[in-house]
Amino acid sequence: MSDLTGQTGVVVTQVERADQRVIDGLAECGVATVHEAQGRKGLLASYMRPIYTGARVAGSAVTILAPPCDNWMIHVCIEQLQDGDIMVLGTTSPSDAGYFGDLLATSAMARGCRGLVIDAGVRDVRDLTEMGFPVWSKAICAQGTVKETLGSVNVPVVCAEELVQPGDVIVADDDGVVVVRRDEAAAVLEKARAREANEGDKRARFDAGELGLDIYDMRGRLAEKGLKYL
Amino acid sequence: MSDLTGQTGVVVTQVERADQRVIDGLAECGVATVHEAQGRKGLLASYMRPIYTGARVAGSAVTILAPPCDNWMIHVCIEQLQDGDIMVLGTTSPSDAGYFGDLLATSAMARGCRGLVIDAGVRDVRDLTEMGFPVWSKAICAQGTVKETLGSVNVPVVCAEELVQPGDVIVADDDGVVVVRRDEAAAVLEKARAREANEGDKRARFDAGELGLDIYDMRGRLAEKGLKYL
Amino acid sequence: MSDLTGQTGVVVTQVERADQRVIDGLAECGVATVHEAQGRKGLLASYMRPIYTGARVAGSAVTILAPPCDNWMIHVCIEQLQDGDIMVLGTTSPSDAGYFGDLLATSAMARGCRGLVIDAGVRDVRDLTEMGFPVWSKAICAQGTVKETLGSVNVPVVCAEELVQPGDVIVADDDGVVVVRRDEAAAVLEKARAREANEGDKRARFDAGELGLDIYDMRGRLAEKGLKYL
Amino acid sequence: MSDLTGQTGVVVTQVERADQRVIDGLAECGVATVHEAQGRKGLLASYMRPIYTGARVAGSAVTILAPPCDNWMIHVCIEQLQDGDIMVLGTTSPSDAGYFGDLLATSAMARGCRGLVIDAGVRDVRDLTEMGFPVWSKAICAQGTVKETLGSVNVPVVCAEELVQPGDVIVADDDGVVVVRRDEAAAVLEKARAREANEGDKRARFDAGELGLDIYDMRGRLAEKGLKYL
Amino acid sequence: MSDLTGQTGVVVTQVERADQRVIDGLAECGVATVHEAQGRKGLLASYMRPIYTGARVAGSAVTILAPPCDNWMIHVCIEQLQDGDIMVLGTTSPSDAGYFGDLLATSAMARGCRGLVIDAGVRDVRDLTEMGFPVWSKAICAQGTVKETLGSVNVPVVCAEELVQPGDVIVADDDGVVVVRRDEAAAVLEKARAREANEGDKRARFDAGELGLDIYDMRGRLAEKGLKYL
Amino acid sequence: MSDLTGQTGVVVTQVERADQRVIDGLAECGVATVHEAQGRKGLLASYMRPIYTGARVAGSAVTILAPPCDNWMIHVCIEQLQDGDIMVLGTTSPSDAGYFGDLLATSAMARGCRGLVIDAGVRDVRDLTEMGFPVWSKAICAQGTVKETLGSVNVPVVCAEELVQPGDVIVADDDGVVVVRRDEAAAVLEKARAREANEGDKRARFDAGELGLDIYDMRGRLAEKGLKYL
Repeated sequence: MSDLTGQTGVVVTQVERADQRVIDGLAECGVATVHEAQGRKGLLASYMRPIYTGARVAGSAVTILAPPCDNWMIHVCIEQLQDGDIMVLGTTSPSDAGYFGDLLATSAMARGCRGLVIDAGVRDVRDLTEMGFPVWSKAICAQGTVKETLGSVNVPVVCAEELVQPGDVIVADDDGVVVVRRDEAAAVLEKARAREANEGDKRARFDAGELGLDIYDMRGRLAEKGLKYL
Repeated sequence: MSDLTGQTGVVVTQVERADQRVIDGLAECGVATVHEAQGRKGLLASYMRPIYTGARVAGSAVTILAPPCDNWMIHVCIEQLQDGDIMVLGTTSPSDAGYFGDLLATSAMARGCRGLVIDAGVRDVRDLTEMGFPVWSKAICAQGTVKETLGSVNVPVVCAEELVQPGDVIVADDDGVVVVRRDEAAAVLEKARAREANEGDKRARFDAGELGLDIYDMRGRLAEKGLKYL
Repeated sequence: MSDLTGQTGVVVTQVERADQRVIDGLAECGVATVHEAQGRKGLLASYMRPIYTGARVAGSAVTILAPPCDNWMIHVCIEQLQDGDIMVLGTTSPSDAGYFGDLLATSAMARGCRGLVIDAGVRDVRDLTEMGFPVWSKAICAQGTVKETLGSVNVPVVCAEELVQPGDVIVADDDGVVVVRRDEAAAVLEKARAREANEGDKRARFDAGELGLDIYDMRGRLAEKGLKYL
Repeated sequence: MSDLTGQTGVVVTQVERADQRVIDGLAECGVATVHEAQGRKGLLASYMRPIYTGARVAGSAVTILAPPCDNWMIHVCIEQLQDGDIMVLGTTSPSDAGYFGDLLATSAMARGCRGLVIDAGVRDVRDLTEMGFPVWSKAICAQGTVKETLGSVNVPVVCAEELVQPGDVIVADDDGVVVVRRDEAAAVLEKARAREANEGDKRARFDAGELGLDIYDMRGRLAEKGLKYL
Repeated sequence: MSDLTGQTGVVVTQVERADQRVIDGLAECGVATVHEAQGRKGLLASYMRPIYTGARVAGSAVTILAPPCDNWMIHVCIEQLQDGDIMVLGTTSPSDAGYFGDLLATSAMARGCRGLVIDAGVRDVRDLTEMGFPVWSKAICAQGTVKETLGSVNVPVVCAEELVQPGDVIVADDDGVVVVRRDEAAAVLEKARAREANEGDKRARFDAGELGLDIYDMRGRLAEKGLKYL
Repeated sequence: MSDLTGQTGVVVTQVERADQRVIDGLAECGVATVHEAQGRKGLLASYMRPIYTGARVAGSAVTILAPPCDNWMIHVCIEQLQDGDIMVLGTTSPSDAGYFGDLLATSAMARGCRGLVIDAGVRDVRDLTEMGFPVWSKAICAQGTVKETLGSVNVPVVCAEELVQPGDVIVADDDGVVVVRRDEAAAVLEKARAREANEGDKRARFDAGELGLDIYDMRGRLAEKGLKYL
């Protein structure tokens, strides 16, 4: 699929998606755990922030490559959405304009879309918050866009400094956004759940006052590195 | 009025304001709709963010030109406030200092002021939130200011990269801040209301699952531009 | 203590702390008032923002000097915490990575820690919010860190452009973070309370519609500087 | 003229310009001196940097209001240029795209244009440097633009946070860019020359080892403010 | 090759490269022309700046995926270099540290390397300038790095917001950096040369005083869009 | 001395300085080498850039704590300068204003000052370049400052995120600025020279085509970490 990276004028209509139970499982684990579980790769840049707090979602990436200040391709994308998808928009050149608002959210929700990850701006954030449609964006900006130039739908895109391929799993919450390759999703979920089980035990010990120095047996290695207590 | 732009040491006491019903109508429409309705001009830079979410206000601009780290002119401005005004502060040189806090807000509210738009910093944000006095600012910063150097009140100012003239209408909400020229306010309101009526209809169709591709009849033009479905 | 500034590989175990009643008094006054009361010094850079609004805390600084992307020293620090402390982390080189999450917060809370001020990133912010553990940080970022390189605990550190010494009093709220030298804390509290008393009176007069121009007797000095009313 | 601020679709063909000898005199004085001489107003934001060092120019502003990523109006502008003009471009929405390159520079130079001040990006900087066509810009960026949407020529524009009106005098050098109102240019030049004469004398005294403390007679006022020598 | 994107611990030793005459041809055309010729894709973010002006190079990308503050993989990369290559480094998490200095440059030059494009920091810039080894970087920073964690060599990387695959052609000059897919390089060169030929003719006409309005026949379309001359 | 950190209204007149031969030796080694030699501490933030390239200096820090937009203390500082000193200015609150220009440089040079490191703005950069007075600054800005508020001279200051104490050694070149504690300067110089000797040997081997993989014997450890060649 990578041959299409950055190519404009194309809509890929067939996208394989991960198992929905795997996707939902990843949502429960959250961004930080999933990122750890897959070896710390796939995290989008930290400037991507949710427009409201408390949302935690996962879905299959339907990708949009859009020109600066031009949201035409979002309309094209919405037709490609399936229940449980998340739209991921990268631009061919940086823009903070408001590509997305309440009307497009209404349309996307009507097709089962779970959210938007956009390396650009969004507007109507009060309406989006009331509708419960979560967005992670680079900016909040009322500036409208045009519908003049073709981009693409479902080609690999760079979004917030990470490559996202159509059908990859997107996990997003208050900590940010992480992308999981579709064919690694099941294995990542397994590791993420193992981490969670392990963390529950750790949490109880920390809560009881045990120290990380002892739980993780760090004292020897710290001394060996030369740490001095004065 | 533009001869006074950037001039310091001046307070203009006579400012014509727009019709209060027009102003209140613009508040109901919100920033994104008003910005569209007036042909996408007048939007302040997107770094201007509200200190708390959910406020949506409009008012007549009473402008302040202030030196860096010096809030003396805000005191001078408050005397010029009328019921329904919004203060708009630009600086002669950039500053993130906290020009404004709960005492000044108490004073401004006592004169019917509806909010502050400040291309600098603000402090006491917890108090301001409890008081329900909305502020859009570049920064939140506890750093105090001095009262040493003259600026001006009610001269045209550049605030967040837009020119604001005294008596212009300011509309502000979670999407940002937009300025409407006083003599265009009534016409802009009319267009904004027309957009809203139109949007209500669109929203229903989107909600029922219709696509923007069809509602806006985009398929032909997309094909003409060469969009290919793979 | 300044000889240790920037030195790595050291844990200072004896730290003198300010009187707890003084610390609690400073918390009640809040950042803006304390900053004014001590002559406008000690304010951390305004990019330090709380992960949730509404917290207002004070505590004794237990400092951490940490390498980029390495949170090992936080584990070392937690053993040094006493009831009422606040951790303050500076780095030897800039990093936005997520040094701190819910497990470390559980451990810190078990030792009576009141919060974290970190010139780097934090993650698990939804959990931290639910736990009521306040953090002021430069970034929110799910990126994990390693445990490879020594830093120090309880040496003077630069955090968000201010020097913080172990045992200094940290005050933090929605306006930001301010550091008060331990041996100046009592005097600063006295001045802060005097300001508050004075402010209560001022607030009533502003609320009644009096102008700052009159309360502070500014008209003469403005005229003398040449302010003109048109 | 301010009624046209921010209005698109307009070309103003009649622009009054300042006396060329005054303009050339201001160029000799340079930005810092001119800015001081006119009371420290009119300085464009410091993110405006020259693409090469050493240029010092002044000219009459021919202004361009351009949409994001759209340089069509520059072509329209060039027809309006007169010998000794400087083009000043502001955008209706932020953009770092490369609006201007060597072909447009060739065209502008053919009409006697002395430079460009652009609140956006520029490209072909190696060619522009060789041609000796100075540009002050927000970014250097090879990204091209389109020619789709109308802006305006010779309406007042906000450029780098300052209002520039057609016919104002622009002075630019390695320190940045300053705008002087046309009708104030002669008076500003007079003050700038007085400053220069005065500075020559000061420079000789500083060079001979005299201190500013003595030249400006500061010791008394410092003592009065409470400065202590330890 | 995209399956390896973001994967660590891997060195791909077989990389197909473009024809060297094509690469050298692209260097002659420069970044702006090549970017236009390939339909305005592939431009790296404009924060990538050369450490000195005047260099214009092209080469085959040998890619490095590196952890934050860890330059170990550059040593691994240098063994994979062939005459005419350019190293392209992306990080797994942002870092401004100085990954590269004069010793590594000596080593790279000994293997025929033509430059470095690094989405991080570089140091010893005075030496690199004297050696004539061009670098495009996000930062100049003396901070050293460690050699602790594996990354990869010759996997696809995101560098400055663009995907770069091993063997792609990198073109870099004072305008920035652009990536050309290996299998498109010859066609892009052809289009770039056509543009240049065309530009030479245009330049002569502009130089003779002809206007873009006439050369590109814009007047009709401007009038049709409603442009008004006042 | 740290008790005076951040205190205003004080001039410390007695400052111990390091041995001038040590200082000059550190200048020869340069910033990157010195930073490594002292264990990678003391590097100022990388936003500090020289106003012209090619300067490499070292000197004893004479420190200035200055209010925002107020350069009064620079005059006070110049009286305290000795031959071979470098001025280091930190602010009590951030400012990009132009605190320093050609007149102050003339005065400082008359007293043997070798340069300025300023966490704020500078102007007259063309003159400073011609005079050969090197400055490392956060900004270039023509905006002038006032002389209203006391700061301090020769108290410890935070400059670009590092603590600098009067009498510390400052080393600055194209890579940035590093501070060396006075009492560590001789030992750091010794280590820096050892590094340089070692680097000369390494450079010759790299130049001859040897690889870092072999020179530093990295292959075993890379294999052990699991690096795979495909």
